[in-house]
Amino acid sequence: MHAVSPVESSTVETPAGAPVRDLRRVHIHPDNWYPLAWSHEVKRGKAHGVRFAGEPIVLVRTESGKVFALEDRCAHRQVPLHGGVVDGEAIRCCYHGWTYDCTGRCIDVPYLGRERLPNGVRSYPCREVEGLIFVFPGKAELAETTPLPPLGSVANRKYKTRRFGREVACHYSFMHENLMDMNHQFLHRRQMGQMRARSLGRRRGDDWVEVDYTFSREAGQQPIGEALVFGQSRQGTKKKHKDVMTIRTQYPYQTLQIRTSEGTLVMDLWIIYVPLDAEQRTNRTFGLLSVKRPKLGFLLDAAWPLLVWFTERIFKEDRWIVEREQEAHDAQGADWNHEVFPVINELRDLLRQCGAPPVRRIVPIEPVETEAAAQPCAS
Amino acid sequence: MHAVSPVESSTVETPAGAPVRDLRRVHIHPDNWYPLAWSHEVKRGKAHGVRFAGEPIVLVRTESGKVFALEDRCAHRQVPLHGGVVDGEAIRCCYHGWTYDCTGRCIDVPYLGRERLPNGVRSYPCREVEGLIFVFPGKAELAETTPLPPLGSVANRKYKTRRFGREVACHYSFMHENLMDMNHQFLHRRQMGQMRARSLGRRRGDDWVEVDYTFSREAGQQPIGEALVFGQSRQGTKKKHKDVMTIRTQYPYQTLQIRTSEGTLVMDLWIIYVPLDAEQRTNRTFGLLSVKRPKLGFLLDAAWPLLVWFTERIFKEDRWIVEREQEAHDAQGADWNHEVFPVINELRDLLRQCGAPPVRRIVPIEPVETEAAAQPCAS
Amino acid sequence: MHAVSPVESSTVETPAGAPVRDLRRVHIHPDNWYPLAWSHEVKRGKAHGVRFAGEPIVLVRTESGKVFALEDRCAHRQVPLHGGVVDGEAIRCCYHGWTYDCTGRCIDVPYLGRERLPNGVRSYPCREVEGLIFVFPGKAELAETTPLPPLGSVANRKYKTRRFGREVACHYSFMHENLMDMNHQFLHRRQMGQMRARSLGRRRGDDWVEVDYTFSREAGQQPIGEALVFGQSRQGTKKKHKDVMTIRTQYPYQTLQIRTSEGTLVMDLWIIYVPLDAEQRTNRTFGLLSVKRPKLGFLLDAAWPLLVWFTERIFKEDRWIVEREQEAHDAQGADWNHEVFPVINELRDLLRQCGAPPVRRIVPIEPVETEAAAQPCAS
Repeated sequence: MHAVSPVESSTVETPAGAPVRDLRRVHIHPDNWYPLAWSHEVKRGKAHGVRFAGEPIVLVRTESGKVFALEDRCAHRQVPLHGGVVDGEAIRCCYHGWTYDCTGRCIDVPYLGRERLPNGVRSYPCREVEGLIFVFPGKAELAETTPLPPLGSVANRKYKTRRFGREVACHYSFMHENLMDMNHQFLHRRQMGQMRARSLGRRRGDDWVEVDYTFSREAGQQPIGEALVFGQSRQGTKKKHKDVMTIRTQYPYQTLQIRTSEGTLVMDLWIIYVPLDAEQRTNRTFGLLSVKRPKLGFLLDAAWPLLVWFTERIFKEDRWIVEREQEAHDAQGADWNHEVFPVINELRDLLRQCGAPPVRRIVPIEPVETEAAAQPCAS
Repeated sequence: MHAVSPVESSTVETPAGAPVRDLRRVHIHPDNWYPLAWSHEVKRGKAHGVRFAGEPIVLVRTESGKVFALEDRCAHRQVPLHGGVVDGEAIRCCYHGWTYDCTGRCIDVPYLGRERLPNGVRSYPCREVEGLIFVFPGKAELAETTPLPPLGSVANRKYKTRRFGREVACHYSFMHENLMDMNHQFLHRRQMGQMRARSLGRRRGDDWVEVDYTFSREAGQQPIGEALVFGQSRQGTKKKHKDVMTIRTQYPYQTLQIRTSEGTLVMDLWIIYVPLDAEQRTNRTFGLLSVKRPKLGFLLDAAWPLLVWFTERIFKEDRWIVEREQEAHDAQGADWNHEVFPVINELRDLLRQCGAPPVRRIVPIEPVETEAAAQPCAS
Repeated sequence: MHAVSPVESSTVETPAGAPVRDLRRVHIHPDNWYPLAWSHEVKRGKAHGVRFAGEPIVLVRTESGKVFALEDRCAHRQVPLHGGVVDGEAIRCCYHGWTYDCTGRCIDVPYLGRERLPNGVRSYPCREVEGLIFVFPGKAELAETTPLPPLGSVANRKYKTRRFGREVACHYSFMHENLMDMNHQFLHRRQMGQMRARSLGRRRGDDWVEVDYTFSREAGQQPIGEALVFGQSRQGTKKKHKDVMTIRTQYPYQTLQIRTSEGTLVMDLWIIYVPLDAEQRTNRTFGLLSVKRPKLGFLLDAAWPLLVWFTERIFKEDRWIVEREQEAHDAQGADWNHEVFPVINELRDLLRQCGAPPVRRIVPIEPVETEAAAQPCAS
């Protein structure tokens, strides 16, 4: 065990008794790659509007199939470009036809000469991999040197992967804590029966924290859905499972892996919670759940609908509870949680440290409309 | 007539010309017993979430049938306990299984030793009587010496009682004023025809005010529904009724009684308006409407559906108008009422005096998360 | 061309580089006649509630058929008078029966003597013309000297008129700009095909601005719906139309007229955008679209459903886009538009100059309830 005391790791910045930032108001750090859509949501020759932390972003798939990402507001009158028309490799605003290329440059205003074209809109670094469209919402110059995250076993043909996700009305931190604290399987007692998690130890680095668990069944039989997802109990009930579950937050992503005592990875989950609104009180979850194919691979295919049903049930219960947590925070105006589990306190510390630095709320200053602005062009 | 001048009674605290508190912002006094649910809403072995003035409260009926009331937030992560599981005489939070007894003490955390149990949650004095579950939301030490209110004739077998109520989107004071000002039966002209109320006089004590009315019909026949509820007109139309209606606000409850000239109580209504939200701009009404059984009691039973229909119609009209009053207050930001009826001005004065004292709005201070808090227990 | 430079016209009040008011926060000037309802919405013997810029107004049609307009709040308890009962030439509040005549004077309180009648409510100058009920929400003494606007060709039997309109969730200025900038027909490409507008010049006066356009078809055939509304293309496709469209904002109204090269007025639109809420972020549009009857007038009648369908489609697209503009303004907190078309900058300047002067937001002071107020009358 390589446990790092959460106390030691936070001593420098939070002396004894000093208050710390309310985690539920810590914004996710923008200098990372975030998936903003599934590939199939952005059809060829179409534009698709998404949001990252309140910023409207349009994803455009050109006629050649390339995807690019721009600020989803026409420079002219601020209307969403996603209502526009893809024109070759460019996007034309639906209102007055202003046209932008993949860099955001304005390349045409139908009623203005080419020499008078106005400024364009912000563009975002954008990459498409494994059916996900990733955008880099932070400082664009950091995108080149920031790698895309490894996506678990999605590219490994020995695994079958379920893509899932939806909107959840809570801060992303509640999602990380929910998954990492396996004592919460009491919430899923109807799906999983009575299980007891035992934490084997935790490890911590600069931008990650992870914890290992084993499980023992306290009563009842293992449900079939659970056997499919987490692997069949290899020792029968009432005994300690030798399988080890490792949950890791590698900021800002999270993974959950189950390995047998022989070291075989039988389940591999990669998941991310992307803030939608400016307050970051909602998120869209993108998950890749990979299950190792058994020797008779068709059995997994046959049982797949059951696995889908089982994971949807679990996810529904988790969504319900984290949305109640967010509601409590909204009502109480602060984080009154009384956390007693050291792994979770360490995770909270990590999410605070790796999050965006505090910002003074930016009050937009009305753009000054001067004589110059009122004078530019022809009729 | 024993009229008490509203001027005299308010002179001390509001010298001539001095402003008074906006009644619509006066909170109801918490040091009273308030019904928060009907008994049938809290089933054996189940928990039921309610609210009092923005405070979430869970009512738990244990397996032995006893009811207790706790703050509806788990001490751990603030999620609602009403989503939990009743376990014998205790309630177990649905998320991580923290367990509380009827005093709010935490008696189990499945993954912590008994010696390390954290603090629990607030409990509320709670009593169940005549199908209502009463809670004392104020200072618990006053509950013992504060009697439950008498509930009209509900326990008297000579009366048949209708229990009714629902949520209304207005401050409770609009409800008191609506019922006490019988000049408002113009609102119910379609149900009652043209009636003229005459105020016989009013009386006032420290925590109550009451007024007597007689009625005369100005045109048309007495509708059957009205005859059922208010008693059949004993003198025919166009003459003055000898029946006397007495409406009383005995803070914070209200009653309406109709007595014949011989002194027989023919109708007895007990009603209370319980604030739901923190701003107290919504309330849940609980009413007990008792009607004296005639000699041929089955006639009342047979006509009961008509009585239900009639009272629902009346209640619907009242709800519509008081919600419009609240909307006007919201839009105007203050109480612009121009009340000319002395009884109502006296009632308003009473509701101000008996209400909760003004509070500075409490801004929650973020609970400080210190090293100590981050350190408590094992993994 | 009589173009007035937008620079010159705004120099005095906005020196170079000085900020100007955010147009989207400029309130419409109340000292004008505004239609608040269609005549058919206010039935004989009925009251109808409407709003102007957050002020609730009740329109009452008496039993003699006359229409008058009052503040839509009973002086007694502020409930809406539109829920009341028309009684001859007066309106009786539904709650306690307070009664007001067409001047807003309180003429009856059923339970008070005539000598004690309280003050009444505000009345508004009100006129009914061509199926519209106009109200003057500003200083009533100016109503007499302020003429009703001319309503295009609605009264001319050589034209057939469609009355239309609905609520749109945006500031009225977005509506004016939308109609006046004909470069926006790109928005209607599905209905109109590819048209190119050419601005011939603009003119400006103290309280008006207007612009002329001609159109040329860039591709495709003229759709039938468009031919009906705008007149059939008289020169075939690909050539320049000789028809001239003139769009004029004559504050606060707007008109759009199409004339043939011989000077015949073939289409005549009168339109107004009446703010509904206090923030003026919603409006109700009232439009009168008059089309010149051809020699065989029945052809226009036969084709009318197609014209209705066509204009509804156009209007739906316009509504969608201006509501997106308002949303962007709400999200950005300021007007980030980058307008390059001089006509529109001139229009914006006009709307700012003619709008209501800036107001400090009025915080209502709670009406002081004194001894005097608590004392007035009998029981």
